Amino acid sequence: MTYCVGLRLDRGLVFMSDTRTNAGVDNISKYRKMFTWNVPGERTFVLMTAGNLATTQTLVSLLEERTKAPEDRNPSILEVPSMFEAARLVGRTLRDVIRESAPGNEPSAQSAFRATIILGGQIKGSEPRLFMIYPEGNFVEACDETPFFQIGETKYGRPILVRAYEPDMTFEAAVKLMMVSFDSTIKANLSVGMPLDMLLYETDSLDIKAQRRIEEDDPYYTLISENWGEALKFAFGSLPDYKL
Amino acid sequence: MTYCVGLRLDRGLVFMSDTRTNAGVDNISKYRKMFTWNVPGERTFVLMTAGNLATTQTLVSLLEERTKAPEDRNPSILEVPSMFEAARLVGRTLRDVIRESAPGNEPSAQSAFRATIILGGQIKGSEPRLFMIYPEGNFVEACDETPFFQIGETKYGRPILVRAYEPDMTFEAAVKLMMVSFDSTIKANLSVGMPLDMLLYETDSLDIKAQRRIEEDDPYYTLISENWGEALKFAFGSLPDYKL
Repeated sequence: MTYCVGLRLDRGLVFMSDTRTNAGVDNISKYRKMFTWNVPGERTFVLMTAGNLATTQTLVSLLEERTKAPEDRNPSILEVPSMFEAARLVGRTLRDVIRESAPGNEPSAQSAFRATIILGGQIKGSEPRLFMIYPEGNFVEACDETPFFQIGETKYGRPILVRAYEPDMTFEAAVKLMMVSFDSTIKANLSVGMPLDMLLYETDSLDIKAQRRIEEDDPYYTLISENWGEALKFAFGSLPDYKL
Repeated sequence: MTYCVGLRLDRGLVFMSDTRTNAGVDNISKYRKMFTWNVPGERTFVLMTAGNLATTQTLVSLLEERTKAPEDRNPSILEVPSMFEAARLVGRTLRDVIRESAPGNEPSAQSAFRATIILGGQIKGSEPRLFMIYPEGNFVEACDETPFFQIGETKYGRPILVRAYEPDMTFEAAVKLMMVSFDSTIKANLSVGMPLDMLLYETDSLDIKAQRRIEEDDPYYTLISENWGEALKFAFGSLPDYKL
């Protein structure tokens, strides 16, 4: 499995992804699931993947035009006029990759070759936008009521996102929120694992604000992981007990 | 879907179940998912069900011997010599019901007619025991390392159970824990819904300590539901922000 979250704040976008892939619990590998295309001052895209690894690797290779000789590559994702067109390009490419793996079948959420994508970023002259793209190639956009997307193993880490997210929160608080959500998921599910990739994008900067890999022994992650349990217990203790 | 939790404490057993069943979001009904067999001073059983409603209703009817005329009924679950035999009886009956619905197919977690059961209770002269029974008819028992079972929509409500459960907690605190876990699930998933059924069993009492239906407007549930969000936010705020 996988766990990735893309979050829309007033001040920008926050992305976090894990790095574990597995084909059964006895076949675990580490792969990056976060990809970026950045032309400073012009456009910044961040893409995160969940699903069949062959599908997502092929998707990213096609988007980067790795079928061509290095000198001939001119990825069309760097040419699209809008974020909407970028999402369409990713969606079409994704659908075609899945269709090729399972000829005769429509790509769908049931396909063994399925993948789901979070795409966010900004092109100069437009707002930052955040999309979730389905195996069928269609997509939805984040809005005020649904300001974040999760893909992969989404359930364990959802309650804290729902409760603690605020659109005007700082990047520093948003990273904390992501880490709590990832910690809850990692503690509950073996198929999501460290290290994590984190990326911050500040509105209108048209450049990556910060991109870090958070290793298992990261002091801040360790602090959150160790103290969140205590903080939760304290919160739990602060509520009155049931009266029989 | 469904959400049921059975919890083993030092002082007894705690059970909670929701009451929502659905065949699609446009076909929602309310059904009890908690069933009891109680012979005060001799044996107390509590059974909770998740899965296909036709399967679980048939299972309970068979266990109660409703195939017979009322005066001839002598449910064998009231005759079994041990909790282990009770779990075997429930497991065999469950497997047979599923097999009858899908002739030629083995009952399995993939079957459309599948159901999963939590069974707990005590027979005079033995310890209280708590089992989870699978569609195939086999079962596992709770132990010190795995002191609770969840069935149905288990993921949203799991992190708080993992973090705040203590074997020596009071019944009053355990009910609070259950309510927080159910509230997190109900807020996240439409297929789990109020009212809730709650049952407490105190070790060696060989009788039901308390059994209540918690309605949507229950003052304590409302208090927990409203304040848990704030308590979580406070807990979240008490951790230091990430430093960029």
